[in-house]
Amino acid sequence: MILVMTRDVTKGEIDHAIKTIESLGLKAHLNAGLERTVISVVGDDPSAASKLENLPGVDRLIPVLPPFKLASRDLHPQDTIIEVGSVRIGAQEIVVMAGPCAVESCEQLSKAAQVLRDCGCKILRGGVFKPRSSPYNFQGLGREGLEIIAAVKREFGLLAVTEATSPQDAELVAQYADIIQIGARNMQNFALLREVAKIKKPVLLKRGMMSTMEELLLCAEYILSSGNRYVILCERGIRTFENYTRYTLDISAVPALKRHSHLPVIVDPSHAAGHWSYVAALSKAAVAAGADGLLIEIHPDPESALCDGKQCLRLNRFVELVGELRRVAQSVGRKM
Amino acid sequence: MILVMTRDVTKGEIDHAIKTIESLGLKAHLNAGLERTVISVVGDDPSAASKLENLPGVDRLIPVLPPFKLASRDLHPQDTIIEVGSVRIGAQEIVVMAGPCAVESCEQLSKAAQVLRDCGCKILRGGVFKPRSSPYNFQGLGREGLEIIAAVKREFGLLAVTEATSPQDAELVAQYADIIQIGARNMQNFALLREVAKIKKPVLLKRGMMSTMEELLLCAEYILSSGNRYVILCERGIRTFENYTRYTLDISAVPALKRHSHLPVIVDPSHAAGHWSYVAALSKAAVAAGADGLLIEIHPDPESALCDGKQCLRLNRFVELVGELRRVAQSVGRKM
Amino acid sequence: MILVMTRDVTKGEIDHAIKTIESLGLKAHLNAGLERTVISVVGDDPSAASKLENLPGVDRLIPVLPPFKLASRDLHPQDTIIEVGSVRIGAQEIVVMAGPCAVESCEQLSKAAQVLRDCGCKILRGGVFKPRSSPYNFQGLGREGLEIIAAVKREFGLLAVTEATSPQDAELVAQYADIIQIGARNMQNFALLREVAKIKKPVLLKRGMMSTMEELLLCAEYILSSGNRYVILCERGIRTFENYTRYTLDISAVPALKRHSHLPVIVDPSHAAGHWSYVAALSKAAVAAGADGLLIEIHPDPESALCDGKQCLRLNRFVELVGELRRVAQSVGRKM
Amino acid sequence: MILVMTRDVTKGEIDHAIKTIESLGLKAHLNAGLERTVISVVGDDPSAASKLENLPGVDRLIPVLPPFKLASRDLHPQDTIIEVGSVRIGAQEIVVMAGPCAVESCEQLSKAAQVLRDCGCKILRGGVFKPRSSPYNFQGLGREGLEIIAAVKREFGLLAVTEATSPQDAELVAQYADIIQIGARNMQNFALLREVAKIKKPVLLKRGMMSTMEELLLCAEYILSSGNRYVILCERGIRTFENYTRYTLDISAVPALKRHSHLPVIVDPSHAAGHWSYVAALSKAAVAAGADGLLIEIHPDPESALCDGKQCLRLNRFVELVGELRRVAQSVGRKM
Repeated sequence: MILVMTRDVTKGEIDHAIKTIESLGLKAHLNAGLERTVISVVGDDPSAASKLENLPGVDRLIPVLPPFKLASRDLHPQDTIIEVGSVRIGAQEIVVMAGPCAVESCEQLSKAAQVLRDCGCKILRGGVFKPRSSPYNFQGLGREGLEIIAAVKREFGLLAVTEATSPQDAELVAQYADIIQIGARNMQNFALLREVAKIKKPVLLKRGMMSTMEELLLCAEYILSSGNRYVILCERGIRTFENYTRYTLDISAVPALKRHSHLPVIVDPSHAAGHWSYVAALSKAAVAAGADGLLIEIHPDPESALCDGKQCLRLNRFVELVGELRRVAQSVGRKM
Repeated sequence: MILVMTRDVTKGEIDHAIKTIESLGLKAHLNAGLERTVISVVGDDPSAASKLENLPGVDRLIPVLPPFKLASRDLHPQDTIIEVGSVRIGAQEIVVMAGPCAVESCEQLSKAAQVLRDCGCKILRGGVFKPRSSPYNFQGLGREGLEIIAAVKREFGLLAVTEATSPQDAELVAQYADIIQIGARNMQNFALLREVAKIKKPVLLKRGMMSTMEELLLCAEYILSSGNRYVILCERGIRTFENYTRYTLDISAVPALKRHSHLPVIVDPSHAAGHWSYVAALSKAAVAAGADGLLIEIHPDPESALCDGKQCLRLNRFVELVGELRRVAQSVGRKM
Repeated sequence: MILVMTRDVTKGEIDHAIKTIESLGLKAHLNAGLERTVISVVGDDPSAASKLENLPGVDRLIPVLPPFKLASRDLHPQDTIIEVGSVRIGAQEIVVMAGPCAVESCEQLSKAAQVLRDCGCKILRGGVFKPRSSPYNFQGLGREGLEIIAAVKREFGLLAVTEATSPQDAELVAQYADIIQIGARNMQNFALLREVAKIKKPVLLKRGMMSTMEELLLCAEYILSSGNRYVILCERGIRTFENYTRYTLDISAVPALKRHSHLPVIVDPSHAAGHWSYVAALSKAAVAAGADGLLIEIHPDPESALCDGKQCLRLNRFVELVGELRRVAQSVGRKM
Repeated sequence: MILVMTRDVTKGEIDHAIKTIESLGLKAHLNAGLERTVISVVGDDPSAASKLENLPGVDRLIPVLPPFKLASRDLHPQDTIIEVGSVRIGAQEIVVMAGPCAVESCEQLSKAAQVLRDCGCKILRGGVFKPRSSPYNFQGLGREGLEIIAAVKREFGLLAVTEATSPQDAELVAQYADIIQIGARNMQNFALLREVAKIKKPVLLKRGMMSTMEELLLCAEYILSSGNRYVILCERGIRTFENYTRYTLDISAVPALKRHSHLPVIVDPSHAAGHWSYVAALSKAAVAAGADGLLIEIHPDPESALCDGKQCLRLNRFVELVGELRRVAQSVGRKM
């Protein structure tokens, strides 16, 4: 890391900084004669950084390495592939996960599951613990919803991804889900991250709506550093000033996360857009940009959906879309 | 609420919408002849809204009332005053809460507490469960830190505010704290909100760095609607594109929250600024804008702080600042 | 439009509002009995709006129609196709415009032009008036650069797009350019918009980095309403908190602008990304999402570029990319 | 400046970088042995930077000095005071500039001017060229408005600030105005900046709603480096995701701009808030935070204002506010 000293730094402050660096077992290179004195430090360890950045005479500390290690492509150049049942996430085949925002009934989920199976998709999504902005909105079916998921995935031979929203639920959710989802609002719920890390099941980690990619990778690092290596990153739109869409899908996150990390990257176009009419265009864009998968909301009857009906695709529109996506996937050398 | 219909809405769709409105026990007023057909609905209930906004022919649904009720000034015109020990938050006197970001040792906390007492401040802050972006940073002393808080507040006759970060800790934190803090990253951790709501202690609810004021008030509503009426709102900076400061203090949140809600509003200038040198200016601005209190980070030795040392005021600078704030408070008809 | 009245509106205020509406030649429908009194107004004229929204007793005014007319798909349902020489922008064929950020020399521009021609691309881009954040950066060759553009486009049989940055230059730029570009920083430079509107040449209007789509369409409206119907919209990334990329490409702008407007939409992936390594992924995403064209920065020697070298593709990488884009275009039913 | 090299940099790339640095007349210090090779360069010149940052093997270039010089407090430690008539902006006395958003008539402006004079305020504001988002909104009285300003300021013994929106108008505006305003939408209208720089009158430079403080200071640098030293910086709110206010007043900009620059800083609370009811709180906050002045919109009859009536204070409310501000000013050791 690099310390840029203040304009009026004193010799005493420089000596003190160098002594402190050395007392931490690190090596200092002094670069005087610049417009500002700069001290290069061999070693880029976050705990040392916190002891150096507030020293007198230090204007700012510039890290040289990214703050995450296990998530970084630097130390792990090949792509990570995560196997869930017969599905390989992060490999050549693009994985479509779809289902309703919230599980409402066995009938509703079965209709979605049937369409998935017919299209050759293998992973069913559906929330049972719903984090909702307002206490007056539908909060999900809870444990009863998990039973519905279990019944439907058995019937249709599918895998399931569903969200855990608190550390107490994590173990319960894991009994039913093949992939545990951490939602955008919980990306930095560190107690929850630590809990799902203990369970050795794949984690689908959604980017917070106002989190940087670096913060997302640091949250992945929480899970990876606790011994769970199965993290799938998910871009789902960030908050900006634009209001024609609900969030702004950060499509650049696909190549940028892949450049900095070896983890698979999928895209949720439904939450990003907030309106079903944009979902097809965004799904195709995600595949063309190199995403490893999609997480799409579909509903047999969006009008009557208890949650986010506006952004759900009807089942027949979803079937069409899968066909369109197959062609885009092929055009960029992938399969579906 | 108001339904604006699509440009090419059909008579059938209009009839269906009106029938659905009436089936929900609400009354519809049709305003045809406008550029767009508009249906005004008597009743502004969120669960009805979710059944209407996705009907065919509906372009958008515009709520007329704010989505929160208990937090709203509409139904509760007078300011809420929250009593904690001898302190009244939201009354004429401005309340300064101060202390280190993280409790590190009994000595460190005692030094801060002594200065607080000498200045006439009555509420000590200090975190023991620290939500940190990186797993490699100091995560707080946990239960041991709570014991330190208990010892120090007893010795100096102070009250204490500290953060709960997971539903499991909430009860434990409540045994030691006079005010339970919900941090910015946990504002929408609904499991945690429900847990602290059960405990009948005041809650200091920080606005998420990514959250609108409306979302903050909806989170307050989660707590209020569970029967805990003691919620203190806290503005602590929102995330923007600006990078001279760590976050952007949304000073307008002070008058805007007070306009829409009866709850007390305090400001955390330290996290917003990210640098101690801005804390004095922002504190004075907050008081001048009408804040009911401040939450300030101070440290006997910022250089060696284990967390956020850059934004901590030295103790002597804090003493000076309290004097300056007293004069600003008087100039706007408040006390301190 | 709709007036939502304040909670404590008086009968006198309601009567005054209705009288004012009628005095403007509009019709008012009163919807009392709601939680809030609502007045629906037949007519949605911006100048009337400014006379109504500040009346006593009015809480807020909600427009029913979009504020732009000529740019709106409502009144002009078919796609607009803009013909420039033999190129048709907005038709089935996707148009690639490419070239260096800044024209530096005849040799540099010729090398780029040759590659364009070899790839079958027909529109050369290159700036000669460069709006730069710092006065100490290269400001462009000015008129001399226009002469270079003229010579090169003649030699290689290409069309050219270049930016006008002030009303005084607009006429001059128009003598050399086939398409006049309005840059992101000048999107709301209304004096400039009025000047280019007078010239009956196609205008490539870039979205401001912190402008909503509605504002972009209102700026198009400035040009359209002055009698120039040839406006091409360009998404080039908006400013957000994310810093792994220079700006955040708002890929949803492609379907959203096409939903609200009939004008062609192109994408500039180079400025959005700020780094050449993301340009291929973003270009493919743009085509898959339905863009009508791309504006890509290329340079024979990016290392020595006087402006934005980091985001320029090398010429051989560009040739490859055109091949890849052709396949993506076909997969979504377009040509290139 | 500092070059951080890529992880897999070759010896050849390092040698080439050092040779390039030396060929620019600068000195290189090589710091190998770090996690990444770092080259410190003596000299921090923007034109050199653009030649180094794209060299092969360079991951990123970190400037050590701010990119502005003349605007920087580094080289000009004392506050700049700008004298306009008998008013000294940036000195101990806080300067209130007020008036209507748009000049509508002699009668309207006179009423505002009279109140200003009665309160002891000396600078009248009022726009005659109005940059409006929509072409269908009132665009200002133009030259006729300038004549009204001239007549009113003469009658009431005031100074005037008004906006120039295009290079062609700058000279004309300067004949009537004592201070030339550059509006937020034109902050990076470099042709306009160069034009007003030639005129040796004070310039009130508003921060763009999308601009960082660094970009604001670089725009000031455009003016300063052209020989006009009289620049007043103005914070007027930035665009964020929050929508209870029109923009988000960045109050931290007051201390942060003063830390980095010697130029006076004023605040426009009216445009930031977008609603008159927040203007008093924000004005007091600005004064408490250390602003050198305020730019406030007032109107004798806000209901009938042709522009931004919602954010205008009534004249009697303004008179009250001036009294309140005087007390806040005194509490922070300033006068008014």
